[in-house]
Amino acid sequence: MLDLVLVGIGTGNPDHLTLQAVRELNAADLILIPRKGPNKADLADLRHTICEQALTNSACRIVEFEMPRRDVADPNYRHGVLQWHDAIARVWQETIEVNLPQGGTVALLVWGDPSLYDSTLRIASRLQPAPRIRSIPGIMSLNMLAAAHTIALNDIGAPFTVTTGRQLRDHGWPEGSNTLIVMLDGECSFQHIPSQDVIIYWGAYVGMPEQILLSGALSEIGPEIITTRAQARAHHGWIMDIYLLRRKIPEQ
Amino acid sequence: MLDLVLVGIGTGNPDHLTLQAVRELNAADLILIPRKGPNKADLADLRHTICEQALTNSACRIVEFEMPRRDVADPNYRHGVLQWHDAIARVWQETIEVNLPQGGTVALLVWGDPSLYDSTLRIASRLQPAPRIRSIPGIMSLNMLAAAHTIALNDIGAPFTVTTGRQLRDHGWPEGSNTLIVMLDGECSFQHIPSQDVIIYWGAYVGMPEQILLSGALSEIGPEIITTRAQARAHHGWIMDIYLLRRKIPEQ
Ligand SMILES: C[S@@+](CC[C@H](N)C(=O)[O-])C[C@H]1O[C@@H](n2cnc3c(N)ncnc32)[C@H](O)[C@@H]1O
Ligand SMILES: C[S@@+](CC[C@H](N)C(=O)[O-])C[C@H]1O[C@@H](n2cnc3c(N)ncnc32)[C@H](O)[C@@H]1O
Repeated sequence: MLDLVLVGIGTGNPDHLTLQAVRELNAADLILIPRKGPNKADLADLRHTICEQALTNSACRIVEFEMPRRDVADPNYRHGVLQWHDAIARVWQETIEVNLPQGGTVALLVWGDPSLYDSTLRIASRLQPAPRIRSIPGIMSLNMLAAAHTIALNDIGAPFTVTTGRQLRDHGWPEGSNTLIVMLDGECSFQHIPSQDVIIYWGAYVGMPEQILLSGALSEIGPEIITTRAQARAHHGWIMDIYLLRRKIPEQ
Repeated sequence: MLDLVLVGIGTGNPDHLTLQAVRELNAADLILIPRKGPNKADLADLRHTICEQALTNSACRIVEFEMPRRDVADPNYRHGVLQWHDAIARVWQETIEVNLPQGGTVALLVWGDPSLYDSTLRIASRLQPAPRIRSIPGIMSLNMLAAAHTIALNDIGAPFTVTTGRQLRDHGWPEGSNTLIVMLDGECSFQHIPSQDVIIYWGAYVGMPEQILLSGALSEIGPEIITTRAQARAHHGWIMDIYLLRRKIPEQ
C-alpha cells in the first residue's frame, strides 16, 4: 500500500515550513524532487535545502526524477496539460516502483499550498492502484505578497478574486470584486485594463533573498514594474511574480 | 521604539505554526492574548497552548487583555466596527505601556493569516506613536478546508472568489468565478442561492479535534449541513465554519 503526502513548503523561504510539514517529511520513506535539466527555475536546490534543514530521519531517502516537459506547441492548451499530467504520473509511478517496491510513504514537496494553481493533486489521482493521498497546507504566494507589503487581502467585509494573467487579459476585470490577486502572469497583464483609480502591490521572488517589491498607483508605477520585471528576469534567468490590484471605490 | 509583530498562527492546529512564527514568538518581549470573558470562542486557551509549545525563551512575557466588545446595536455596521477598532487600539496601548514602558517587541497571535478578514493590521495602524509593524504569514482557514477535503481551490487556470456570508446573501453569486469560498457566515447563506449544479465542500472547526466535514451536491447535502451546524454549535457553545461552492460548468 502506498501513502502519498503532498507537503506544502511555502514559496521560497525555508522558514515557512510548518511544524506539521517538518513532521510529515520525517515520516516519509521517500521524498521525490523534480529536476528540469539545468533550468534554475525548477528550484530543485531550494527543495534540497529545505530537506536538509527539516530532516532528522536518516532513513528517509531523497530521489530526483526528470520532469517531463509540456508540449507547448499543442494548440489545445487543456489537452496539452492533460497529456503532460499523464506523463508526470508515469514518471512518479516508475520512480516509486524502483525505489519503494514494497510500498510505504512518499512525500512530494509542493510549492506554496497544494490547493492553489498546482496540479500535484490532479496528477496524484492518476496513479494506479490509487494511493492514500493527504494534503498538508502551506503558506501561499498571496500570503507572502500581503505580508511583504503589510497589507490585507480584503477590504473590510469585501470579497476578492484570485485569478491568472491570462484571465485578466482575456476577460478584463471580473465583476463582483474590487480586489484582484493575479498569479501565473508572464506578461504584466495589468497593461490590458484601465489603470485609473487602481492601486497595485507587486512582488517578485517574494520571501526569497531576491525579493523585489513595488507598489503605488497603477498608472504611475505600471511602466516601472514592466521594466523592473524584464531586468530581473534577464538577470536571474527566471522570475516568479504576483500582484494585488485594488480598485478605489467611493466610501459608502 | 516599539516593534509590533503580527504572527499568523494558523486556524486551530498548533502544528500549523511555521518555523518563522516560532522564531518570532521567541524574539518577542511581550505576547498579548485577548480574553472575552468566559466565552470559549475567544480561543485564548489554544493561544496559551501554542505559546507553551513554541516558547523556549523564558524572558518573553505573556499578558492577557480584556477584549472590548463591538456595539452590535450600532445601525451603521461600518461605524460600529471603526469605533470598536479604536477601543481595541486603546487597550493595546495601555497594556503595552504598563508592561513594556521602555519599548521593545510585542507579538500578537493572529488567527490564520493576518491578511485575511482580520482587523489586527488596521487596529495596529491606529497606535501612536506608530510602531514598526511586521506581518508573519500563517496557514488560512481556506487552505485548511482544501487540505481536509483533499481538493484544489481553483479549477485549472480558473479564478475563484473569496467572500463572506453577508455578501452572498445580499448580492448572490458574483459574476466572473465559478468557485466561491465563503467565510464569516453565521447563517448558512448558501440557502439563498439556486442550488442546482452546485457542489459544496463544508468544514467546521477545520484542523481542530472537533473538525466536521461534509460535501456533496448542495441540493442534497445543504439541509444536512444546516442541521449539523446547529447541533455542533449548541454542543460546543461556538462554531467556526467555511465552505467552498463550485458551479459545474460544461466542459469547454
Ligand atoms: C503554479 S503557481 C503555484 C502557486 C503556489 N501553489 C502557491 O501556493 O502560491 C505559480 C505562481 O505562483 C506565484 N508565486 C509563487 N511563488 C512566488 C514567489 N515566491 N514570489 C512571487 N510569486 C510567486 C506566481 O504568480 C507564479 O506564477
Ligand atoms: C475573522 S475571520 C479570520 C480568518 C483568518 N484570518 C484566516 O486566515 O482564516 C473568521 C472566519 O474564518 C473562518 N475560519 C477560521 N478558522 C476556521 C476553522 N478552524 N474552521 C472553519 N472555519 C474557520 C470562518 O469562516 C470564520 O468565520
